Amino acid sequence: MEFSSKLLEKAVNEMAQLPGIGKRTALRLVLHLLKQPAEHTHFLAGALTQMRDEIKFCQSCHNIADVAVCEICSNPARNHQIICVVEDVRDVMAIENTNQFKGIYHVLGGKISPIDGVGPSQLNITSLVQKVQAGAVEELIFALSSTMEGDTTNFYIYKQIKDFSVKTSTIARGIAVGDELEYADEVTLGRSILHRIPFENSLKNN
Amino acid sequence: MEFSSKLLEKAVNEMAQLPGIGKRTALRLVLHLLKQPAEHTHFLAGALTQMRDEIKFCQSCHNIADVAVCEICSNPARNHQIICVVEDVRDVMAIENTNQFKGIYHVLGGKISPIDGVGPSQLNITSLVQKVQAGAVEELIFALSSTMEGDTTNFYIYKQIKDFSVKTSTIARGIAVGDELEYADEVTLGRSILHRIPFENSLKNN
Repeated sequence: MEFSSKLLEKAVNEMAQLPGIGKRTALRLVLHLLKQPAEHTHFLAGALTQMRDEIKFCQSCHNIADVAVCEICSNPARNHQIICVVEDVRDVMAIENTNQFKGIYHVLGGKISPIDGVGPSQLNITSLVQKVQAGAVEELIFALSSTMEGDTTNFYIYKQIKDFSVKTSTIARGIAVGDELEYADEVTLGRSILHRIPFENSLKNN
Repeated sequence: MEFSSKLLEKAVNEMAQLPGIGKRTALRLVLHLLKQPAEHTHFLAGALTQMRDEIKFCQSCHNIADVAVCEICSNPARNHQIICVVEDVRDVMAIENTNQFKGIYHVLGGKISPIDGVGPSQLNITSLVQKVQAGAVEELIFALSSTMEGDTTNFYIYKQIKDFSVKTSTIARGIAVGDELEYADEVTLGRSILHRIPFENSLKNN
């Protein structure tokens, strides 16, 4: 791509470094900003910079927060003995949306993934193990993605805490609500039969 | 979406105002920036702000430029009597890439589109008509998209300059190089037959 302006080229190149944004898309976004009043660009740039520089992570669960201890961790109405282990803030938001979980979270900040160069030391695993060692945790719920990396991370944590008196569970894998059986993959369908639940239970949890 | 941080929420909302970027994508992009060193965000924000504040438009062709008159318009080797009328800088880049055009451009900055609230007065049409009136233009090549808005804009300009001694042309519409006839739409195929060219000509322009 040959640009008629160095300023334009620089903006497009920076934008194109974002994941999933190619050069053409970046150019479209940058030209959109050019058509808008300059304040739009200033607001965007300001919001990104401020977010990057001032954002904090909860000292307890490592979720993104504006304060030292996040709203969930500082809420006495929540059960602090049940910890749901998740990958990042999106998973916290997704689970919070269900209104089904009244415990607290522990955000790992990723999954163990040798291919991407992510090892256990880059994740918030030590602080989780310490919580369990301190004896204040009744149950750990593993809620990572059902991928090889997710399973590896689950198992890595499990190995470190299995000698302590803590219950561990993973979220149920099975046919999604509303899905047709014939389109389900075999592994999921197989697991959903293996881990079937009493019919009465399925009536309660809507 | 419920965010655990106002800073995060603000950044996501600003990002989601870009065209084609929804809230989920915006969150993904913002979380990516959070995982990168802070300089990445600073570079991005700086490049966007600098681009928006300092970018100039060529006084002659209205293309994006870093100087008062762009490289193409100030190039004496180009034919200043042939003007290619395009919608925006992307079209200039696309045509320049072909290496088939040695005239200059006139960037309208959009198309007449009542639905989007874009009228002729918001486009760089007056300066184009003035160039034609001044008598220095031999040929105008309309190279707008082949849509209703593009055709409307072409016709609007044509009406204003048709009494002056200027040749007008539009880029050829037809079957794209490499395309199979059976998948072409009827209008395009019909036009390509109607506006067929001598076979010898097709051998020359590769």
